[in-house]
Amino acid sequence: MNSLINETHDPDLKSLIEAANDPESDFPIQNLPLGVFKPRGTESPPHVGVAIGDLILDLALCGNGGLLDGLSSQLISACAADSLKALMSLGPESWSSLRRRVSGLLRAGDERSHRGRIHASLVPMSEAEMMMPAVIGDYTDFYASIYHAQNVGSLFRPDNPLLPNYKHVPIGYHGRASSIVISGTPVRRPCGQIEGADSVPEFSPTRMLDYELEVGFFIGPGNSLGVPIAISDAEAHLFGLCLVNDWSARDIQKWEYQPLGPFLGKSFATTISPWIVSVEALAPYRVPAFARSPGDPTPLPYLKDEQGPVRGGIDLRVEALLISQQMRSQRCRPMLLSRGNLRDLYWTPSQLLTHHASNGCNLRPGDLLASGTISGASEDARGCLLELTRRGARPLELPGGETRRFLENGDEVIFRAFAEREGFVRIGLGECRGMVIG
Amino acid sequence: MNSLINETHDPDLKSLIEAANDPESDFPIQNLPLGVFKPRGTESPPHVGVAIGDLILDLALCGNGGLLDGLSSQLISACAADSLKALMSLGPESWSSLRRRVSGLLRAGDERSHRGRIHASLVPMSEAEMMMPAVIGDYTDFYASIYHAQNVGSLFRPDNPLLPNYKHVPIGYHGRASSIVISGTPVRRPCGQIEGADSVPEFSPTRMLDYELEVGFFIGPGNSLGVPIAISDAEAHLFGLCLVNDWSARDIQKWEYQPLGPFLGKSFATTISPWIVSVEALAPYRVPAFARSPGDPTPLPYLKDEQGPVRGGIDLRVEALLISQQMRSQRCRPMLLSRGNLRDLYWTPSQLLTHHASNGCNLRPGDLLASGTISGASEDARGCLLELTRRGARPLELPGGETRRFLENGDEVIFRAFAEREGFVRIGLGECRGMVIG
Repeated sequence: MNSLINETHDPDLKSLIEAANDPESDFPIQNLPLGVFKPRGTESPPHVGVAIGDLILDLALCGNGGLLDGLSSQLISACAADSLKALMSLGPESWSSLRRRVSGLLRAGDERSHRGRIHASLVPMSEAEMMMPAVIGDYTDFYASIYHAQNVGSLFRPDNPLLPNYKHVPIGYHGRASSIVISGTPVRRPCGQIEGADSVPEFSPTRMLDYELEVGFFIGPGNSLGVPIAISDAEAHLFGLCLVNDWSARDIQKWEYQPLGPFLGKSFATTISPWIVSVEALAPYRVPAFARSPGDPTPLPYLKDEQGPVRGGIDLRVEALLISQQMRSQRCRPMLLSRGNLRDLYWTPSQLLTHHASNGCNLRPGDLLASGTISGASEDARGCLLELTRRGARPLELPGGETRRFLENGDEVIFRAFAEREGFVRIGLGECRGMVIG
Repeated sequence: MNSLINETHDPDLKSLIEAANDPESDFPIQNLPLGVFKPRGTESPPHVGVAIGDLILDLALCGNGGLLDGLSSQLISACAADSLKALMSLGPESWSSLRRRVSGLLRAGDERSHRGRIHASLVPMSEAEMMMPAVIGDYTDFYASIYHAQNVGSLFRPDNPLLPNYKHVPIGYHGRASSIVISGTPVRRPCGQIEGADSVPEFSPTRMLDYELEVGFFIGPGNSLGVPIAISDAEAHLFGLCLVNDWSARDIQKWEYQPLGPFLGKSFATTISPWIVSVEALAPYRVPAFARSPGDPTPLPYLKDEQGPVRGGIDLRVEALLISQQMRSQRCRPMLLSRGNLRDLYWTPSQLLTHHASNGCNLRPGDLLASGTISGASEDARGCLLELTRRGARPLELPGGETRRFLENGDEVIFRAFAEREGFVRIGLGECRGMVIG
């Protein structure tokens, strides 16, 4: 039991929302992720809400109804905003106060006079349209899974898959923020330059469209330009987690990426899941940082995470599934493509964040860091088709007899993630979905 | 004389602002760049203004004073905003209407009843603090100077300086938007991982701090996700130009950049000049696109700029200067380091923009594209110290006996740019300055 666990994680807590007590629900009362939504099909302004079972607790309505009374005025006002940015900027004490209040409001048991006001603040998820949680100022994508780096590296450099810097420096690159979309948004197959014979390219729709199974970290208060973040402070700047599909056009990427890295092979779309699960909600599922192999270098002092050996990692299972047009028409269930775990990252979230700010680069509320493709040691834990099919050499077989080297139009990719541990209630991140269109 | 030239470019136009008629001024009445400013040392809200000589015409005050009457209400409201973003989103017809109106207001000659209101809308530059022109959503840095690519490539790959993709695909990468700062902001020497012996890094302040002399292009209306921009439409999405210093820590960059490109070696700071010169102001200085060598590939059809052979390029001289702490104390003038020209880019601005959106990536008002380091064919046209000193092997000599391989604390880097042509008035971009601090 670690010191981060408190009464909001109590496995015996039940919610007054019946669906939240279903052990299969991603959103029990122990989770309480934040998101932004509006009534589907309307032009109403977006509201901040908390997922509970199959409902959303509308925090703006809670504020209006006096249900947040006693919290700081800053916090109440952030709950009435049209994005999570103001909440993100407030920091862990505020996030924790809000979590405790919402946990109390949604708890079953003690009958209270404000029960009616709570019900008046609930909206069915089926009637809500999820929105981007915040305007994402900057999006950074890391490359933190050593298994992914090894698998991809071995396709290009069989004798030397890992570059000499990998175990010393968290590798990352700036991604495109404008084309980040919310789960459910169709993803148009991009065109681009693709190398043909004799290094002569053609401009054509990608023939090697791939997904990448990743987890994203939204930044909280962040830092001023020129002022790094010490690793001991890093978690105070992590607002929460979501799923990220870093769609990739491998043929476009291959031709363009030297010498300056991925560009148009990635920037056509990146999909995120809409519910942001707080670091506090994940407290029961913290695990030691990745166990480096004997002989691996010790991280440099600025990356030395004292909490790392105790709880630097997060035990979060992540899954990628696929359903094709044919599978849908034949009423097949989505097929599991891979199952990985966030704990398999070579670097902890705190190390990624601290490294990012170590040159003085300012991180801002609403900025998004992503893990990079999460792959594991086993064959069934490869987080993208490039790895799973070995760049198309070993096509996957889908139910119904189809095969896949890369994604076809009509394919929908679905990511899920959940944390579970004996003695605690399982919590989930919800889904990150996107269908490829032509 | 090309068809883009109109009465606002007339070299015989004089301004009622005397300093604007000085042939050395960057801001004659033929220029009229837009920027955002506030009274220095106050918390007043920023206003949009136009540079004219040594003054700023405050467009919010102009609007209040009725001087913009007759323009569209959208345009008047955009002029009263606290950034240029709304103006950027309106497109070339609006930009052109505003330019004609401001040109009329600031013209010498015909005495008019509103002369008093014009003077009431003018602010001395010496009393103004320049602000970021807009929140930059995404920043993209290209690598469009073939001379720079060759010079840098030859340092790393003497036999094969240009990669096979270079002449086919405009190379670019996503940069960091949060750390873009306005001219005059001090730049703190960043720390980072630097490779030592046997590929073992240390964490230390960079010892190879460099500048990169670039020109930036602010995006106008932009495109929706999934909808590319045809090259014939590209210029309608170019709001205007500024100078960009893409500060670079070469040792950090060298260790981290494989395989995903530059990251912390760049993201500690990028400086831009505050005045955005419109594409319309640059009409007299348009020139044919870069003359490709015989045997170079023809651009793919989506990049084939029909205007390219006529006026795809821009004849804009760019200069980098340096003044050290010792030079300042000895009252030396800044030393010219290099002089290049935007017309030497291998790709036109339209080609860069069209390529960027060719995969459906959405460009938004306020996004910034930068050219990459502008170098030319000659030795004195190398736009960064990495090239000028051949990675430190040939130090520069400064007045007073100092030498420089890379930048020292106290060094101030100054960029200037101007367009001139026989029969027209010379216009400038103003300055982009930054001093290195420890």
